[in-house]
Amino acid sequence: MAVYTEVSDGELSAFIADYDLGTLLSFRGIAEGVENTNYIVHTDQAQFILTLYEKRVDPDDLPFFLALLDHLKGTGLAVPAPVQDRSGEALRTLSGRPAALFTFLEGLWVRRPKVQHCSALGRALAEFHLKSEGFALERKNALSVESWATLAKDCGAGADDLEAGLSVALTEESAELGKLWPDGLPKGVIHADLFPDNVFFIGDEISGFIDFYFACTDAFAYDLAICLNAWCFEPDHDFNVTKGRALLAGYESVRPLSEAERDALPLLARGSAFRFLLTRLYDWVNTPEGALVKPKDPTEYLKKHRFHKAVGRISEYGL
Amino acid sequence: MAVYTEVSDGELSAFIADYDLGTLLSFRGIAEGVENTNYIVHTDQAQFILTLYEKRVDPDDLPFFLALLDHLKGTGLAVPAPVQDRSGEALRTLSGRPAALFTFLEGLWVRRPKVQHCSALGRALAEFHLKSEGFALERKNALSVESWATLAKDCGAGADDLEAGLSVALTEESAELGKLWPDGLPKGVIHADLFPDNVFFIGDEISGFIDFYFACTDAFAYDLAICLNAWCFEPDHDFNVTKGRALLAGYESVRPLSEAERDALPLLARGSAFRFLLTRLYDWVNTPEGALVKPKDPTEYLKKHRFHKAVGRISEYGL
Repeated sequence: MAVYTEVSDGELSAFIADYDLGTLLSFRGIAEGVENTNYIVHTDQAQFILTLYEKRVDPDDLPFFLALLDHLKGTGLAVPAPVQDRSGEALRTLSGRPAALFTFLEGLWVRRPKVQHCSALGRALAEFHLKSEGFALERKNALSVESWATLAKDCGAGADDLEAGLSVALTEESAELGKLWPDGLPKGVIHADLFPDNVFFIGDEISGFIDFYFACTDAFAYDLAICLNAWCFEPDHDFNVTKGRALLAGYESVRPLSEAERDALPLLARGSAFRFLLTRLYDWVNTPEGALVKPKDPTEYLKKHRFHKAVGRISEYGL
Repeated sequence: MAVYTEVSDGELSAFIADYDLGTLLSFRGIAEGVENTNYIVHTDQAQFILTLYEKRVDPDDLPFFLALLDHLKGTGLAVPAPVQDRSGEALRTLSGRPAALFTFLEGLWVRRPKVQHCSALGRALAEFHLKSEGFALERKNALSVESWATLAKDCGAGADDLEAGLSVALTEESAELGKLWPDGLPKGVIHADLFPDNVFFIGDEISGFIDFYFACTDAFAYDLAICLNAWCFEPDHDFNVTKGRALLAGYESVRPLSEAERDALPLLARGSAFRFLLTRLYDWVNTPEGALVKPKDPTEYLKKHRFHKAVGRISEYGL
């Protein structure tokens, strides 16, 4: 929760005057988003989200993200759509930061997803994968299997503070996943961070996905594996097979998995749990005490990773 | 900027269901407000501000604040109006905190007020004073002259870190103001904290006042004196007599000052500068390093206080 960059009334009035959106009526900084600064902006025509991109986002990636959202909007998917100014630009500069204005998406994120939410998520994820297919740009997944050995090394001996011997185990698992990692699965744009706080619901229906700033080109089934981790475990980190079944069946009702994808799912789930274990552990080891943003507990993904490592077949996820 | 109390989708949906406001569509925590937690809430009917009252607000004062806003709304003044639930209650409980829902007020606060803003403020302040007159409840000004000796003492020797000898000077000034402080001036409800971030504009017109959580029963001219301090000095803390004239003339165009109020204004301005000097100094002395909310610089009000101490007559403010 943070507004890293303060914008003044004068700056924003001048910025909004470059669009065909009427007069600026109000704006409020939102206490959400670890990576960027966001404001809710009202003009006399509509409301918007204004995003100022902070240091953790690579400016070179912004054209990919904005073009993707524009493409998805064109397919009818509910996403925050970039708004172009009068000269046709969506990516601009405000208060010294790259900045873009987006349509406002209604919806609530569900703190405790139920079975019906997992089912709706599965369907919506498959639709997103199908609709992303016409998108021409590519972006490498910077947090996939090739990055894990380095990430594990960068956590250093701090990993052993979480659990004795963890540091060595992480290095070994990086190497093993590097050998086992599947190739040739159906690929396209994946969201890669579809946790509950990035999925909006109105009632039991999904009203949209947000926060595409980890989106990249990777195996569709890897996105599904991330959702298995993020949606189908209980608060005590035990797997809920009913939610797993709902997610997978929902997905397959729109986009059936190939045999290779089904076979790979336990490995993809193990890999995605490992990816979140590594990044959370990295933040946990490297965040100074008393920092504004508290690091998330890495032990959650330690448990999840161990669970998937013991899974042999997709049927153990409920399907 | 902070959301102190997290509210879940389920809690807020249940809360909103007690009102005749339709279905909850979205809510976002606002990164504003040092004292309370605020959310922008959308239902399918309208948008609102949800306020959860944190520890710095005395729950016993809340009925006064809410009744005042209700009264002002009834007079046609643009303020956040408390919304009643189906049983007629505006003050409720959410996530273990006192909570209330308010109508959403459009407008921008002006980072750098110009002369026309001071003029509009003067008129709107006088209207607010006139319209508050029918309000029956009273609340003592807890930060007026009787409190200053204690506040000065509580700043302690820390005051001398700001300027050598300041600690003694504060105690002497508290005593002197206690002797000189005027009595019998026209009284009523004052806002008592009408800084630029609490006044919304659309263009050059005021669209409303917000944040009434220092409102109390006190001399109307003291409210005007607070505005002189908060609006009519330049960023280098020099008084701008053109802005002073605009504020006072704007005020008098709606509610002319009595002879006693005019005579008292330099003393009231000196006292109000002293009040903000003391509270800022107190926070500055008592805020641990690295705290979430940075204390405001007390030297600004040290300079302003000295300026007013040298003022003999209202004409020096431009009138």
